[in-house]
Amino acid sequence: MLLIDSLIDRINDKASPIVVGLDPVIEHVPNYLKQASLSQFGNTPQAAAEALFQFNSTLLETLQPVIPAVKLQSACYELYGQYGNELFDKTVELANQLDYIVIDDAKRNDIGNTAQMYAIAHLGDSPLIEGSETRVKPDFLTINPLLGEDSIQPFVKQCQISNKGLFILVRTSNPSAKQYQEAVLDGKPLYQQIAGDVQKLSKHNCGNHGFSNYGAVVGATWNDEITALRSVMPNVFFLMPGYGAQGGTADQLVTGFSEEGMGVLVNASRSVIFAHNKAENQKRSQNENWASAALEEASRMRDDLLRSLKQAGKLPGNW
Amino acid sequence: MLLIDSLIDRINDKASPIVVGLDPVIEHVPNYLKQASLSQFGNTPQAAAEALFQFNSTLLETLQPVIPAVKLQSACYELYGQYGNELFDKTVELANQLDYIVIDDAKRNDIGNTAQMYAIAHLGDSPLIEGSETRVKPDFLTINPLLGEDSIQPFVKQCQISNKGLFILVRTSNPSAKQYQEAVLDGKPLYQQIAGDVQKLSKHNCGNHGFSNYGAVVGATWNDEITALRSVMPNVFFLMPGYGAQGGTADQLVTGFSEEGMGVLVNASRSVIFAHNKAENQKRSQNENWASAALEEASRMRDDLLRSLKQAGKLPGNW
Repeated sequence: MLLIDSLIDRINDKASPIVVGLDPVIEHVPNYLKQASLSQFGNTPQAAAEALFQFNSTLLETLQPVIPAVKLQSACYELYGQYGNELFDKTVELANQLDYIVIDDAKRNDIGNTAQMYAIAHLGDSPLIEGSETRVKPDFLTINPLLGEDSIQPFVKQCQISNKGLFILVRTSNPSAKQYQEAVLDGKPLYQQIAGDVQKLSKHNCGNHGFSNYGAVVGATWNDEITALRSVMPNVFFLMPGYGAQGGTADQLVTGFSEEGMGVLVNASRSVIFAHNKAENQKRSQNENWASAALEEASRMRDDLLRSLKQAGKLPGNW
Repeated sequence: MLLIDSLIDRINDKASPIVVGLDPVIEHVPNYLKQASLSQFGNTPQAAAEALFQFNSTLLETLQPVIPAVKLQSACYELYGQYGNELFDKTVELANQLDYIVIDDAKRNDIGNTAQMYAIAHLGDSPLIEGSETRVKPDFLTINPLLGEDSIQPFVKQCQISNKGLFILVRTSNPSAKQYQEAVLDGKPLYQQIAGDVQKLSKHNCGNHGFSNYGAVVGATWNDEITALRSVMPNVFFLMPGYGAQGGTADQLVTGFSEEGMGVLVNASRSVIFAHNKAENQKRSQNENWASAALEEASRMRDDLLRSLKQAGKLPGNW
């Protein structure tokens, strides 16, 4: 089965088009987890990584009933060097065991032969002195397309070999996205041109639901553009960051879903995983109930999205 | 002293505007190194990483008399997960001890708060449970500017805190660079607009030689554009990939140097570090003399660049 169909099955099973960002920040990890790790490893990068792993594990176990996919922001892991990398691998492995689809948000990019190495590093089997290793790798990788087609093709090839997927940056959620992404190419803004190229990549590689393994990052903050991007990319799954804190609302981003209510994973990171730090949850922030605040926020977000989908007449019948 | 001036001092000391790419590939590592590592660690990612570290160490020691800077291609290290990360850190530490300037070629990019984490991970001190760690970090980081100014500023801020530097992708060396980098913004190709923005960042932050810590990646393959980019970016140091295998010649890229013969680091990777694999060096490829082939190629390249600089009337008087 094509990876994208596995993702869609999980979204349907949980009636939840949500990906939670496992973007742990040591400052916001509950204190009892940090103290346990400190007493085991001292004040070292290893201790920080271990506290973050306990944080991630609890979230993965708690959110499992309502969340089909997780996204790991590579920067949070790269902070801790080799220990961060071990933390990343252990988190991917546990997420995989718990049946989540895993997105590696690393925004990699380089010229051809180096792009191929990135693709193998993140989605394939790395070459050993003899043969190659098999380690559990993420399912999807985010990539930055600025270097053009010959920098994207090696990632596509690796996806074909390993049934993995990509989310290609088309329109990022930050305010400065306007600065370079709206340069004009053949009469269109650059981001629309990139959108057209992702659609070309997708249209002959679709699975059972009309989507391919080659998705696009589309910021939920660009209200007016989401409908246009959906029509340019009918066969492209969207990863949409920017809901909540960055200003994207459910009513806005629902225009990115297909008429059948599919084709979007809405991302939430801090609002969910640090829900215990909100004023109304302060009592939970220092004990083992902190993760229930994350589950409540994920459920609230799911209800919000389903309400908007229903209002737009797009709620899938089996949800 | 500003980092860029430390780089320029090293270039002047060695009369050598060259950065060697430490982009090791297990397939091309001399066999005796692989066998030693295999017998110590078995056929594991750790064994591959250890063989690559022995390879890197020998290169760093051998090239030291003629090379002022090394560039580590992150993809080559990411292949081996936590062991690759340890290899990366050990290589950076040794290069630092041997007085090289170290460029981390990771092409990172993300929205503001994540960009800040990348900046800390690669150039700063990562937060521990209490306080922060101090680990030897690279001097320069390459970044991809597609997400615009608010994604670049966090890297700039970290550079100001730590006296580190950036090489921002302006014009990459691959053929598909034309595809998106020539979209038009305010009547200019996007890459020229980005060049103008890097110049703005640089012009009020110059050191003793008229250059700042904020450099640009400019492919040596774009013959006609190099002169124009130098005039748009008079205060910007260039990192130029694409010499040799990709087709860039010394006579072409010499136009990127200032009239004083400064402002460019020419990159060479495979042609130098795998010189032992060339037909004429096959005898050396299986014994401990392999690194002398790298030294010879680096010296040949240096002579080639100096000859072109002299011909253009740009050879610095003290070289």
